[in-house]
Amino acid sequence: MMKLVLVRHGESEWNKLNLFTGWTDVDLSDKGHQEAANAGKLLKEEGYDFDVAYTSYLKRAIHTLNHVLDELDRNWIPVNKSWKLNERHYGGLQGLNKAETAEKYGDEQVKIWRRSFDVKPPELDENDERSAKKQDMYRNVDPALLPDNESLATTIERVVPYFNETIKKDMLEGKRVIIAAHGNSLRALVKYFDHISDEDIINVNIPTGSPLVYEFDDNFNAIKHYYLGDQEALKAKMEAVANQGKAK
Amino acid sequence: MMKLVLVRHGESEWNKLNLFTGWTDVDLSDKGHQEAANAGKLLKEEGYDFDVAYTSYLKRAIHTLNHVLDELDRNWIPVNKSWKLNERHYGGLQGLNKAETAEKYGDEQVKIWRRSFDVKPPELDENDERSAKKQDMYRNVDPALLPDNESLATTIERVVPYFNETIKKDMLEGKRVIIAAHGNSLRALVKYFDHISDEDIINVNIPTGSPLVYEFDDNFNAIKHYYLGDQEALKAKMEAVANQGKAK
Repeated sequence: MMKLVLVRHGESEWNKLNLFTGWTDVDLSDKGHQEAANAGKLLKEEGYDFDVAYTSYLKRAIHTLNHVLDELDRNWIPVNKSWKLNERHYGGLQGLNKAETAEKYGDEQVKIWRRSFDVKPPELDENDERSAKKQDMYRNVDPALLPDNESLATTIERVVPYFNETIKKDMLEGKRVIIAAHGNSLRALVKYFDHISDEDIINVNIPTGSPLVYEFDDNFNAIKHYYLGDQEALKAKMEAVANQGKAK
Repeated sequence: MMKLVLVRHGESEWNKLNLFTGWTDVDLSDKGHQEAANAGKLLKEEGYDFDVAYTSYLKRAIHTLNHVLDELDRNWIPVNKSWKLNERHYGGLQGLNKAETAEKYGDEQVKIWRRSFDVKPPELDENDERSAKKQDMYRNVDPALLPDNESLATTIERVVPYFNETIKKDMLEGKRVIIAAHGNSLRALVKYFDHISDEDIINVNIPTGSPLVYEFDDNFNAIKHYYLGDQEALKAKMEAVANQGKAK
Protein backbone atom coordinates (compact mmCIF):
# COMPACT_ATOMS: atom_id res chain seq x y z
CA MET A 1 0.00 0.00 0.00
CA MET A 2 1.35 3.40 -0.99
CA LYS A 3 0.36 6.70 0.58
CA LEU A 4 0.63 10.15 -0.91
CA VAL A 5 -0.02 13.38 0.96
CA LEU A 6 -1.27 16.51 -0.78
CA VAL A 7 -1.29 19.93 0.91
CA ARG A 8 -2.83 23.04 -0.59
CA HIS A 9 -0.92 26.16 0.44
CA GLY A 10 -2.32 28.31 3.23
CA GLU A 11 -4.11 31.60 2.65
CA SER A 12 -2.11 34.00 0.46
CA GLU A 13 -2.04 37.79 0.54
CA TRP A 14 -4.23 37.76 -2.56
CA ASN A 15 -6.68 35.12 -1.32
CA LYS A 16 -7.28 37.58 1.49
CA LEU A 17 -7.89 40.43 -0.96
CA ASN A 18 -10.07 38.13 -3.09
CA LEU A 19 -7.95 38.69 -6.23
CA PHE A 20 -7.42 36.17 -9.03
CA THR A 21 -3.88 34.97 -8.40
CA GLY A 22 -2.94 32.17 -10.78
CA TRP A 23 0.78 32.37 -11.49
CA THR A 24 1.24 35.68 -9.65
CA ASP A 25 3.94 34.94 -7.08
CA VAL A 26 2.32 36.33 -3.95
CA ASP A 27 3.37 35.18 -0.51
CA LEU A 28 1.33 33.60 2.28
CA SER A 29 -0.57 35.89 4.63
CA ASP A 30 0.16 35.61 8.37
CA LYS A 31 -2.86 33.33 8.59
CA GLY A 32 -1.48 31.30 5.69
CA HIS A 33 1.86 30.83 7.45
CA GLN A 34 -0.05 29.63 10.49
CA GLU A 35 -2.22 27.25 8.45
CA ALA A 36 0.91 25.77 6.88
CA ALA A 37 2.57 25.24 10.27
CA ASN A 38 -0.65 23.62 11.51
CA ALA A 39 -0.62 21.23 8.55
CA GLY A 40 2.89 20.21 9.61
CA LYS A 41 1.80 19.76 13.23
CA LEU A 42 -1.14 17.56 12.17
CA LEU A 43 1.15 15.37 10.07
CA LYS A 44 3.58 15.08 12.97
CA GLU A 45 0.82 14.18 15.44
CA GLU A 46 -0.41 11.47 13.10
CA GLY A 47 3.10 10.04 12.72
CA TYR A 48 3.66 10.89 9.06
CA ASP A 49 7.15 10.90 7.62
CA PHE A 50 8.47 11.61 4.13
CA ASP A 51 11.44 10.77 1.97
CA VAL A 52 10.95 13.38 -0.72
CA ALA A 53 8.81 16.48 -1.32
CA TYR A 54 7.46 18.16 -4.42
CA THR A 55 6.24 21.69 -4.85
CA SER A 56 5.66 24.37 -7.48
CA TYR A 57 7.81 27.38 -8.41
CA LEU A 58 5.50 29.69 -6.46
CA LYS A 59 6.56 30.91 -3.03
CA ARG A 60 3.20 30.39 -1.35
CA ALA A 61 3.56 26.64 -2.00
CA ILE A 62 7.30 26.54 -1.24
CA HIS A 63 6.81 28.40 2.05
CA THR A 64 3.96 26.07 2.96
CA LEU A 65 6.24 23.11 2.37
CA ASN A 66 9.03 24.76 4.38
CA HIS A 67 6.68 25.14 7.36
CA VAL A 68 5.60 21.51 7.09
CA LEU A 69 9.21 20.31 6.90
CA ASP A 70 10.10 22.51 9.88
CA GLU A 71 7.33 21.01 11.99
CA LEU A 72 8.28 17.48 10.95
CA ASP A 73 11.99 18.19 11.45
CA ARG A 74 12.55 17.05 7.87
CA ASN A 75 14.29 20.09 6.40
CA TRP A 76 16.97 17.79 5.01
CA ILE A 77 14.79 15.73 2.64
CA PRO A 78 15.12 16.51 -1.08
CA VAL A 79 12.62 19.06 -2.41
CA ASN A 80 11.82 19.06 -6.12
CA LYS A 81 10.28 22.23 -7.54
CA SER A 82 8.50 22.33 -10.87
CA TRP A 83 6.42 24.96 -12.62
CA LYS A 84 4.25 22.05 -13.75
CA LEU A 85 2.78 21.96 -10.24
CA ASN A 86 1.91 25.69 -10.39
CA GLU A 87 -1.62 26.95 -9.92
CA ARG A 88 -3.78 27.11 -13.02
CA HIS A 89 -2.77 30.19 -15.05
CA TYR A 90 -5.62 32.71 -14.81
CA GLY A 91 -4.58 34.71 -17.86
CA GLY A 92 -6.00 38.23 -18.07
CA LEU A 93 -7.94 37.79 -14.83
CA GLN A 94 -4.74 37.73 -12.76
CA GLY A 95 -4.76 40.69 -10.38
CA LEU A 96 -8.50 41.36 -10.75
CA ASN A 97 -10.83 41.33 -7.75
CA LYS A 98 -13.08 38.29 -7.78
CA ALA A 99 -16.18 40.07 -6.52
CA GLU A 100 -15.71 42.94 -9.03
CA THR A 101 -15.17 40.49 -11.86
CA ALA A 102 -18.36 38.71 -10.77
CA GLU A 103 -20.30 41.99 -10.77
CA LYS A 104 -18.99 42.82 -14.26
CA TYR A 105 -19.34 39.42 -15.93
CA GLY A 106 -21.89 37.82 -13.61
CA ASP A 107 -21.55 35.06 -11.05
CA GLU A 108 -22.13 32.42 -13.68
CA GLN A 109 -19.31 33.54 -16.02
CA VAL A 110 -16.91 33.79 -13.11
CA LYS A 111 -17.98 30.39 -11.88
CA ILE A 112 -17.40 29.05 -15.40
CA TRP A 113 -13.92 30.59 -15.54
CA ARG A 114 -13.08 29.35 -12.09
CA ARG A 115 -14.66 25.96 -12.16
CA SER A 116 -15.47 24.81 -15.65
CA PHE A 117 -13.40 22.01 -17.05
CA ASP A 118 -12.24 23.40 -20.35
CA VAL A 119 -13.08 27.10 -20.62
CA LYS A 120 -9.98 29.27 -20.45
CA PRO A 121 -10.03 32.77 -18.97
CA PRO A 122 -9.04 35.66 -21.28
CA GLU A 123 -5.52 35.22 -22.66
CA LEU A 124 -2.70 37.29 -21.21
CA ASP A 125 -0.74 39.09 -23.91
CA GLU A 126 2.84 37.85 -23.92
CA ASN A 127 4.04 41.47 -23.75
CA ASP A 128 1.96 42.03 -20.64
CA GLU A 129 4.18 42.52 -17.58
CA ARG A 130 2.20 39.73 -15.93
CA SER A 131 3.21 37.21 -18.61
CA ALA A 132 5.21 34.18 -17.45
CA LYS A 133 7.55 34.85 -20.38
CA LYS A 134 8.53 38.13 -18.64
CA GLN A 135 9.38 36.51 -15.29
CA ASP A 136 12.92 35.48 -14.26
CA MET A 137 11.35 32.43 -12.69
CA TYR A 138 10.78 30.74 -16.04
CA ARG A 139 14.03 31.74 -17.71
CA ASN A 140 15.12 28.11 -18.01
CA VAL A 141 11.77 26.89 -19.34
CA ASP A 142 11.10 26.62 -23.08
CA PRO A 143 8.81 29.67 -23.67
CA ALA A 144 6.70 27.56 -26.04
CA LEU A 145 5.62 25.49 -23.02
CA LEU A 146 4.53 28.48 -20.94
CA PRO A 147 0.79 29.18 -20.99
CA ASP A 148 -0.90 32.60 -21.31
CA ASN A 149 -4.11 31.20 -19.78
CA GLU A 150 -5.30 27.78 -18.72
CA SER A 151 -8.47 25.81 -18.18
CA LEU A 152 -8.53 22.97 -15.70
CA ALA A 153 -8.26 20.66 -18.73
CA THR A 154 -4.99 22.24 -19.91
CA THR A 155 -3.69 22.36 -16.31
CA ILE A 156 -4.23 18.60 -16.13
CA GLU A 157 -2.26 18.20 -19.35
CA ARG A 158 0.88 19.41 -17.56
CA VAL A 159 0.23 18.18 -14.00
CA VAL A 160 -0.66 14.55 -14.68
CA PRO A 161 2.25 13.76 -17.03
CA TYR A 162 4.61 15.38 -14.52
CA PHE A 163 3.11 13.23 -11.79
CA ASN A 164 3.47 10.06 -13.82
CA GLU A 165 6.98 10.78 -15.04
CA THR A 166 8.52 11.86 -11.73
CA ILE A 167 6.44 11.60 -8.55
CA LYS A 168 4.91 8.21 -9.29
CA LYS A 169 8.37 6.78 -9.94
CA ASP A 170 9.49 7.84 -6.48
CA MET A 171 6.38 6.24 -4.98
CA LEU A 172 6.95 2.98 -6.85
CA GLU A 173 10.47 2.94 -5.39
CA GLY A 174 8.87 2.99 -1.94
CA LYS A 175 9.49 6.65 -1.20
CA ARG A 176 6.97 8.51 0.93
CA VAL A 177 5.98 11.63 -0.96
CA ILE A 178 4.36 14.92 0.02
CA ILE A 179 3.21 17.49 -2.53
CA ALA A 180 2.62 21.11 -1.52
CA ALA A 181 0.78 22.83 -4.32
CA HIS A 182 -2.35 24.75 -5.35
CA GLY A 183 -6.12 24.41 -5.55
CA ASN A 184 -6.18 23.55 -9.23
CA SER A 185 -2.95 21.58 -9.62
CA LEU A 186 -4.14 19.40 -6.73
CA ARG A 187 -7.64 19.19 -8.20
CA ALA A 188 -5.99 17.89 -11.39
CA LEU A 189 -4.42 15.06 -9.39
CA VAL A 190 -7.59 14.30 -7.44
CA LYS A 191 -9.59 14.06 -10.68
CA TYR A 192 -6.99 11.71 -12.10
CA PHE A 193 -6.73 9.49 -9.01
CA ASP A 194 -10.49 9.17 -8.44
CA HIS A 195 -11.64 9.16 -12.09
CA ILE A 196 -13.90 12.12 -11.40
CA SER A 197 -15.90 13.27 -14.41
CA ASP A 198 -15.31 16.61 -16.15
CA GLU A 199 -18.69 17.73 -14.78
CA ASP A 200 -18.20 16.66 -11.19
CA ILE A 201 -14.71 18.04 -10.67
CA ILE A 202 -16.18 21.58 -10.69
CA ASN A 203 -17.67 20.96 -7.25
CA VAL A 204 -14.59 19.49 -5.64
CA ASN A 205 -13.08 22.05 -3.25
CA ILE A 206 -9.75 21.38 -1.60
CA PRO A 207 -9.34 23.34 1.64
CA THR A 208 -6.11 25.20 2.39
CA GLY A 209 -3.50 23.79 4.76
CA SER A 210 -5.35 20.50 5.30
CA PRO A 211 -3.29 17.38 4.56
CA LEU A 212 -5.18 15.15 2.10
CA VAL A 213 -4.01 11.54 2.20
CA TYR A 214 -4.41 9.17 -0.75
CA GLU A 215 -3.88 5.44 -0.45
CA PHE A 216 -3.07 3.34 -3.51
CA ASP A 217 -2.95 -0.39 -4.09
CA ASP A 218 -0.04 -2.09 -5.85
CA ASN A 219 -1.61 -1.39 -9.24
CA PHE A 220 -1.74 2.28 -8.34
CA ASN A 221 -5.49 2.42 -7.97
CA ALA A 222 -6.61 5.02 -5.43
CA ILE A 223 -8.49 2.94 -2.86
CA LYS A 224 -9.12 5.56 -0.20
CA HIS A 225 -8.62 9.21 0.62
CA TYR A 226 -9.18 11.35 3.69
CA TYR A 227 -8.26 14.68 5.22
CA LEU A 228 -6.37 14.92 8.48
CA GLY A 229 -7.72 17.25 11.16
CA ASP A 230 -11.03 18.50 12.52
CA GLN A 231 -13.68 17.31 10.05
CA GLU A 232 -16.28 19.99 10.94
CA ALA A 233 -13.75 22.80 10.42
CA LEU A 234 -12.80 21.24 7.08
CA LYS A 235 -16.38 21.27 5.87
CA ALA A 236 -16.67 25.00 6.66
CA LYS A 237 -13.40 25.64 4.82
CA MET A 238 -14.57 23.80 1.70
CA GLU A 239 -17.77 25.85 1.62
CA ALA A 240 -15.78 29.07 1.98
CA VAL A 241 -13.69 28.13 -1.11
CA ALA A 242 -16.86 27.38 -3.09
CA ASN A 243 -18.30 30.80 -2.21
CA GLN A 244 -15.21 32.86 -3.10
CA GLY A 245 -16.27 33.63 -6.67
CA LYS A 246 -19.71 34.97 -5.79
CA ALA A 247 -20.47 38.67 -5.96
CA LYS A 248 -20.81 40.22 -2.53
CA MET B 1 35.27 34.20 -15.30
CA MET B 2 33.25 32.15 -12.84
CA LYS B 3 31.98 33.38 -9.48
CA LEU B 4 31.02 31.32 -6.48
CA VAL B 5 29.37 32.69 -3.34
CA LEU B 6 29.87 31.08 0.08
CA VAL B 7 27.73 31.98 3.09
CA ARG B 8 28.35 30.71 6.59
CA HIS B 9 25.08 30.29 8.52
CA GLY B 10 24.08 32.98 10.98
CA GLU B 11 24.40 32.60 14.75
CA SER B 12 22.81 29.40 16.06
CA GLU B 13 21.18 28.77 19.43
CA TRP B 14 24.31 26.87 20.46
CA ASN B 15 26.78 29.48 19.16
CA LYS B 16 24.99 31.80 21.56
CA LEU B 17 25.41 29.33 24.44
CA ASN B 18 29.04 28.73 23.41
CA LEU B 19 28.52 24.95 23.04
CA PHE B 20 30.37 22.68 20.61
CA THR B 21 27.78 22.01 17.94
CA GLY B 22 29.25 20.00 15.07
CA TRP B 23 26.51 17.82 13.61
CA THR B 24 23.96 18.68 16.32
CA ASP B 25 20.97 20.01 14.38
CA VAL B 26 20.31 23.23 16.28
CA ASP B 27 18.40 26.09 14.70
CA LEU B 28 19.43 29.69 14.11
CA SER B 29 18.97 32.18 16.95
CA ASP B 30 16.84 35.27 16.30
CA LYS B 31 20.08 37.11 15.58
CA GLY B 32 21.10 34.30 13.22
CA HIS B 33 17.83 34.61 11.28
CA GLN B 34 18.50 38.33 11.00
CA GLU B 35 22.10 37.79 9.87
CA ALA B 36 20.92 35.37 7.19
CA ALA B 37 18.31 37.83 5.89
CA ASN B 38 20.99 40.54 5.85
CA ALA B 39 23.26 38.32 3.77
CA GLY B 40 20.42 38.01 1.26
CA LYS B 41 19.85 41.76 1.25
CA LEU B 42 23.55 42.42 0.62
CA LEU B 43 23.57 40.00 -2.31
CA LYS B 44 20.47 41.65 -3.72
CA GLU B 45 21.92 45.16 -3.36
CA GLU B 46 25.06 44.03 -5.18
CA GLY B 47 23.02 42.53 -8.01
CA TYR B 48 23.86 38.87 -7.41
CA ASP B 49 21.70 36.16 -8.91
CA PHE B 50 21.92 32.37 -8.78
CA ASP B 51 20.87 29.36 -10.81
CA VAL B 52 21.40 26.70 -8.18
CA ALA B 53 22.09 26.48 -4.45
CA TYR B 54 23.86 23.96 -2.26
CA THR B 55 23.57 23.43 1.46
CA SER B 56 24.11 20.85 4.17
CA TYR B 57 21.59 18.59 5.92
CA LEU B 58 21.60 20.87 8.98
CA LYS B 59 18.73 23.29 9.52
CA ARG B 60 20.88 26.26 10.51
CA ALA B 61 22.41 26.20 7.01
CA ILE B 62 19.12 25.36 5.24
CA HIS B 63 17.29 28.17 7.03
CA THR B 64 20.11 30.58 6.20
CA LEU B 65 19.78 29.64 2.55
CA ASN B 66 15.97 30.01 2.72
CA HIS B 67 16.37 33.57 4.04
CA VAL B 68 18.84 34.42 1.27
CA LEU B 69 16.53 32.99 -1.41
CA ASP B 70 13.58 34.90 0.10
CA GLU B 71 15.47 38.20 -0.07
CA LEU B 72 16.63 37.50 -3.62
CA ASP B 73 13.15 36.30 -4.66
CA ARG B 74 14.77 33.07 -5.83
CA ASN B 75 12.80 30.50 -3.85
CA TRP B 76 12.23 28.57 -7.05
CA ILE B 77 15.86 27.71 -7.87
CA PRO B 78 16.95 24.11 -7.23
CA VAL B 79 18.48 23.49 -3.82
CA ASN B 80 20.77 20.50 -3.35
CA LYS B 81 21.33 19.29 0.20
CA SER B 82 24.19 17.02 1.17
CA TRP B 83 25.55 15.82 4.51
CA LYS B 84 28.96 16.22 2.88
CA LEU B 85 28.62 19.98 3.39
CA ASN B 86 27.85 19.54 7.10
CA GLU B 87 29.93 21.17 9.78
CA ARG B 88 32.98 19.23 10.97
CA HIS B 89 31.82 16.45 13.34
CA TYR B 90 32.95 17.39 16.84
CA GLY B 91 32.66 13.86 18.25
CA GLY B 92 32.44 13.63 22.03
CA LEU B 93 32.72 17.41 22.42
CA GLN B 94 29.28 17.97 20.89
CA GLY B 95 27.00 19.57 23.48
CA LEU B 96 29.86 20.64 25.79
CA ASN B 97 30.40 24.27 26.74
CA LYS B 98 33.47 25.69 25.03
CA ALA B 99 34.64 27.75 28.00
CA GLU B 100 34.18 24.79 30.40
CA THR B 101 36.03 22.49 28.03
CA ALA B 102 38.80 25.08 27.85
CA GLU B 103 39.00 25.25 31.64
CA LYS B 104 39.19 21.46 31.88
CA TYR B 105 41.60 20.72 29.04
CA GLY B 106 43.27 24.12 28.70
CA ASP B 107 42.98 26.79 26.02
CA GLU B 108 45.70 25.16 24.00
CA GLN B 109 44.04 21.71 23.77
CA VAL B 110 40.73 23.29 22.82
CA LYS B 111 42.44 25.47 20.23
CA ILE B 112 44.10 22.31 18.86
CA TRP B 113 40.76 20.50 18.69
CA ARG B 114 39.05 23.48 17.14
CA ARG B 115 41.74 24.66 14.79
CA SER B 116 44.42 22.04 14.20
CA PHE B 117 44.52 20.46 10.80
CA ASP B 118 44.49 16.78 11.60
CA VAL B 119 43.78 16.24 15.30
CA LYS B 120 40.33 14.74 15.86
CA PRO B 121 38.28 15.46 18.98
CA PRO B 122 37.33 12.46 21.18
CA GLU B 123 35.32 9.87 19.24
CA LEU B 124 31.58 9.66 19.81
CA ASP B 125 30.50 6.11 20.61
CA GLU B 126 28.15 4.86 17.91
CA ASN B 127 25.65 3.88 20.60
CA ASP B 128 25.67 7.41 21.96
CA GLU B 129 22.34 9.15 21.33
CA ARG B 130 24.32 11.94 19.66
CA SER B 131 25.77 9.57 17.03
CA ALA B 132 24.90 10.33 13.42
CA LYS B 133 24.06 6.64 13.05
CA LYS B 134 21.16 7.22 15.49
CA GLN B 135 19.65 10.16 13.58
CA ASP B 136 16.80 9.82 11.06
CA MET B 137 18.60 12.41 8.98
CA TYR B 138 21.25 9.95 7.82
CA ARG B 139 18.98 6.94 7.30
CA ASN B 140 19.73 6.91 3.57
CA VAL B 141 23.49 7.30 4.01
CA ASP B 142 25.81 4.27 4.16
CA PRO B 143 26.64 4.12 7.90
CA ALA B 144 30.24 3.24 7.02
CA LEU B 145 30.60 6.75 5.58
CA LEU B 146 29.31 8.52 8.69
CA PRO B 147 32.04 9.88 10.99
CA ASP B 148 32.12 9.66 14.80
CA ASN B 149 34.54 12.59 14.95
CA GLU B 150 36.43 14.64 12.39
CA SER B 151 39.53 16.75 12.01
CA LEU B 152 39.63 19.52 9.45
CA ALA B 153 41.71 17.10 7.34
CA THR B 154 38.99 14.44 7.32
CA THR B 155 36.32 17.10 6.78
CA ILE B 156 38.19 18.17 3.63
CA GLU B 157 38.23 14.54 2.47
CA ARG B 158 34.42 14.65 2.12
CA VAL B 159 33.86 18.33 1.22
CA VAL B 160 36.37 18.73 -1.62
CA PRO B 161 35.42 15.58 -3.57
CA TYR B 162 31.74 16.57 -3.23
CA PHE B 163 32.60 20.02 -4.56
CA ASN B 164 34.53 18.61 -7.50
CA GLU B 165 31.98 15.96 -8.38
CA THR B 166 28.85 18.10 -8.20
CA ILE B 167 29.18 21.83 -7.57
CA LYS B 168 32.14 22.41 -9.90
CA LYS B 169 30.25 20.68 -12.71
CA ASP B 170 27.39 23.13 -12.35
CA MET B 171 29.84 26.03 -12.43
CA LEU B 172 31.57 24.70 -15.56
CA GLU B 173 28.13 24.58 -17.20
CA GLY B 174 27.84 28.31 -16.52
CA LYS B 175 25.53 28.06 -13.54
CA ARG B 176 25.82 30.68 -10.82
CA VAL B 177 26.18 28.83 -7.53
CA ILE B 178 25.67 29.78 -3.89
CA ILE B 179 26.69 27.50 -1.01
CA ALA B 180 25.21 28.01 2.46
CA ALA B 181 27.23 25.93 4.90
CA HIS B 182 29.39 25.95 8.02
CA GLY B 183 32.61 27.37 9.42
CA ASN B 184 34.65 24.24 8.76
CA SER B 185 33.06 22.93 5.58
CA LEU B 186 33.62 26.40 4.08
CA ARG B 187 37.14 26.54 5.49
CA ALA B 188 37.79 23.25 3.67
CA LEU B 189 36.79 24.90 0.39
CA VAL B 190 38.77 28.09 1.08
CA LYS B 191 41.90 26.04 1.83
CA TYR B 192 41.44 24.12 -1.40
CA PHE B 193 40.75 27.19 -3.57
CA ASP B 194 43.62 29.29 -2.20
CA HIS B 195 46.16 26.49 -1.60
CA ILE B 196 46.46 27.51 2.04
CA SER B 197 48.93 25.43 4.04
CA ASP B 198 47.86 23.04 6.79
CA GLU B 199 49.46 25.44 9.29
CA ASP B 200 47.90 28.66 8.02
CA ILE B 201 44.32 27.44 7.68
CA ILE B 202 44.06 27.37 11.50
CA ASN B 203 43.98 31.19 11.54
CA VAL B 204 41.39 31.63 8.79
CA ASN B 205 38.09 32.70 10.36
CA ILE B 206 34.98 32.94 8.22
CA PRO B 207 32.40 35.32 9.71
CA THR B 208 28.75 34.32 9.92
CA GLY B 209 26.18 35.64 7.43
CA SER B 210 28.76 37.46 5.30
CA PRO B 211 28.74 36.52 1.61
CA LEU B 212 32.26 35.48 0.52
CA VAL B 213 32.75 35.74 -3.24
CA TYR B 214 35.38 33.69 -5.12
CA GLU B 215 36.32 34.42 -8.69
CA PHE B 216 37.91 31.71 -10.84
CA ASP B 217 39.62 31.81 -14.22
CA ASP B 218 38.80 29.36 -17.00
CA ASN B 219 41.23 26.81 -15.58
CA PHE B 220 39.42 27.03 -12.25
CA ASN B 221 42.21 28.88 -10.48
CA ALA B 222 40.90 31.14 -7.72
CA ILE B 223 42.09 34.57 -8.80
CA LYS B 224 40.34 36.75 -6.25
CA HIS B 225 38.07 36.62 -3.23
CA TYR B 226 36.28 39.22 -1.13
CA TYR B 227 33.50 39.62 1.40
CA LEU B 228 30.44 41.73 0.68
CA GLY B 229 29.37 44.26 3.31
CA ASP B 230 30.89 46.62 5.86
CA GLN B 231 34.59 45.69 6.04
CA GLU B 232 35.16 47.06 9.58
CA ALA B 233 32.22 45.09 10.99
CA LEU B 234 33.59 41.97 9.26
CA LYS B 235 36.97 42.36 10.91
CA ALA B 236 35.33 42.52 14.35
CA LYS B 237 33.27 39.41 13.52
CA MET B 238 36.36 37.43 12.48
CA GLU B 239 38.09 38.31 15.75
CA ALA B 240 35.03 37.24 17.72
CA VAL B 241 35.13 33.80 16.05
CA ALA B 242 38.85 33.44 16.85
CA ASN B 243 38.20 34.21 20.54
CA GLN B 244 35.29 31.80 21.02
CA GLY B 245 37.43 28.90 22.25
CA LYS B 246 39.21 30.82 24.98
CA ALA B 247 38.35 30.32 28.67
CA LYS B 248 36.39 33.22 30.10
